Amino acid sequence: MRKVAVLGIGLTPIGEHWEKSLRVIAGEAVFAALNDARIAPPQMQALYVGNMLSGPLNGQENIGTLIADWVGWRGVEASKIEAACGSGAAAFRAGVMAVASGEFDLVTVVGVEKMTETGGPSTTSSLASAADADYEAAQGLSFVAINALVMRRYLHEFGWKHNDFAPFSINAHANAAHNPNARLREAITVKDYNRARMVADPINLLDASPIGDGAAAIVLCPADRLLPNGGPAITVAGSASATDSIAVHGRRDPMLLAAAQLSAQKAYAQAGVRPEDIDVFELHDAFSIMAALSLEACGFAERGQGVRLGLDGQIGPNGKVPIATMGGLKARGHPVGATGVYQLAEVALQLRGEAGETQVRDARVGMAQNIGGSGATVVTHILARE
Amino acid sequence: MRKVAVLGIGLTPIGEHWEKSLRVIAGEAVFAALNDARIAPPQMQALYVGNMLSGPLNGQENIGTLIADWVGWRGVEASKIEAACGSGAAAFRAGVMAVASGEFDLVTVVGVEKMTETGGPSTTSSLASAADADYEAAQGLSFVAINALVMRRYLHEFGWKHNDFAPFSINAHANAAHNPNARLREAITVKDYNRARMVADPINLLDASPIGDGAAAIVLCPADRLLPNGGPAITVAGSASATDSIAVHGRRDPMLLAAAQLSAQKAYAQAGVRPEDIDVFELHDAFSIMAALSLEACGFAERGQGVRLGLDGQIGPNGKVPIATMGGLKARGHPVGATGVYQLAEVALQLRGEAGETQVRDARVGMAQNIGGSGATVVTHILARE
Repeated sequence: MRKVAVLGIGLTPIGEHWEKSLRVIAGEAVFAALNDARIAPPQMQALYVGNMLSGPLNGQENIGTLIADWVGWRGVEASKIEAACGSGAAAFRAGVMAVASGEFDLVTVVGVEKMTETGGPSTTSSLASAADADYEAAQGLSFVAINALVMRRYLHEFGWKHNDFAPFSINAHANAAHNPNARLREAITVKDYNRARMVADPINLLDASPIGDGAAAIVLCPADRLLPNGGPAITVAGSASATDSIAVHGRRDPMLLAAAQLSAQKAYAQAGVRPEDIDVFELHDAFSIMAALSLEACGFAERGQGVRLGLDGQIGPNGKVPIATMGGLKARGHPVGATGVYQLAEVALQLRGEAGETQVRDARVGMAQNIGGSGATVVTHILARE
Repeated sequence: MRKVAVLGIGLTPIGEHWEKSLRVIAGEAVFAALNDARIAPPQMQALYVGNMLSGPLNGQENIGTLIADWVGWRGVEASKIEAACGSGAAAFRAGVMAVASGEFDLVTVVGVEKMTETGGPSTTSSLASAADADYEAAQGLSFVAINALVMRRYLHEFGWKHNDFAPFSINAHANAAHNPNARLREAITVKDYNRARMVADPINLLDASPIGDGAAAIVLCPADRLLPNGGPAITVAGSASATDSIAVHGRRDPMLLAAAQLSAQKAYAQAGVRPEDIDVFELHDAFSIMAALSLEACGFAERGQGVRLGLDGQIGPNGKVPIATMGGLKARGHPVGATGVYQLAEVALQLRGEAGETQVRDARVGMAQNIGGSGATVVTHILARE
């Protein structure tokens, strides 16, 4: 297979965009990515859209074609790829496969979600469709409730206190303050964290990521045909996806994100790197418990010790394992089907040295991990600066 | 890229399966395909699911992982691919790409839809999400209403009468009578057709395909590693997808399915064949007007002359252009996200010589064309017996 390169990226601010429809938000990201790639649209061959909830929330399916039509690419191949909150990276992976296989030389991946203004069911009940509808959601378990059960078990099993998770949220907010596309750009303190309103015990408001409307796009091409757009070559060194039981109760060890571990191990092997070689790690901190579990599953911490990295001050841009460097899901925001593409674009910005105030010094290898469901579907990518 | 082969197929009867959940129906198709392929499940590497409406109708997303988990393939890559009623063939194409690229040696594609028992919005309003939600559906246009406008225009522009379309429905029902998986297994007459209740003038009940619950699965592998399962080698000779404007009013010529034409031309070029080389054509006869337009777009008839093939008796299993040989969408049934996989499995059965009473004699090259929206997203595959 051919090596694939990131030719351009486009990001839109995450927020409540009541004045913009789904296609408009997606189009803004696509045009920004084309502009960044310095290419003309007529060359585009395919569009892969990462999105979870356009059907229930926006009454619109077939959005691959909808967006291709909107941006003026009539005729190109287009489809939507859905893997719950892992949809963005799943769509990126489809784009990578299309270029790596030789099928296409120029494709665009866009992740988009419009969640804050809906004509359908509530966002909370729609998000629960990422869990097992028959055996979890039907019992009244919302998505935050499932994560609360996991966090409670973690506190019990490993003897941590709730506020040992504070560094994850504090780091994310501190970094988001410098990201113009972040939804929550206010720094927070330990005091704020401890006083935050409870959502589903033990998850409080500052353990949870905010939803939002947003889109992120990435243009991909073969690395050996990289067009001169002025920046360093960023290539896809590893791309892997894995699954676990959809319901948390189906797992032998609910404290292990087995699919995160498996997809990370595959990506490490493809890239020929180990966890210590990763300069920046955009992880899926939809809830602070997921940050700890992801760090453990990916080999950055022992089982039950993920929180220690935060307590030891190792997760900031200058730490040993920089995470959520542009705010993460926690503070950049989590427009679910778009998140995976935001993560990948942020890693690319870090590798280009364009991450601004939260730039990780001389970042050469970065990882993005996008999770659908409660660790059910995990897509891991490793990008490298050549 | 590597040549890809169809190793196994599995089909389930289309109907109202109130006693079976979506995952159960999908699992039955997957197990049937594994059985047909004569392989052991542990070898499987990925599952691509074609589905349109699991979110709105079944309250369940992330069904790639849901089904992989259900059939016992924990760990494999899984995702859902959505392109409205073209989802099935879009998922098949994802599977083809994964094998052709060398990423995987054994993947399964399953198309599944459960439509007849829903806890969400009506099926009719959910199906309208395949159209443009802002500019078509919001005006009150249902999917059948859009097709009625197109059919009315066709009758006006080319001077045909409504019952000139009767042969499409009569052929589909005649063929479905021999297909144990078909939803409507009753032969119909011209009289039945002319007397059928009106749905949206000029589309009557016998112009329209029935929805249903159903699943179809196909196991794919590289052609050069085809495992000995006793049957002839069926390979993927062409695979292409193309798009048009999502709204019918956005097209220069609403009588031309431009995306059907484009994807068919690409598939013909890949396979090195012409329309006259196609021995069997499973087309997307969601409405009888679509049968005519597909025949024209794919080069089997001149513009406005698609109905003539039916009137001339050329569309039956012994005709010049056999279509809907196992009932088509019209009578086999149209569980929307599953349909594309049913079509491909039926073409494979024809090429294997296992199509029973409606077998096309010595079929060697077959085409399946799956359409999402009103011609908005079209995925065309050509299969060949080696």
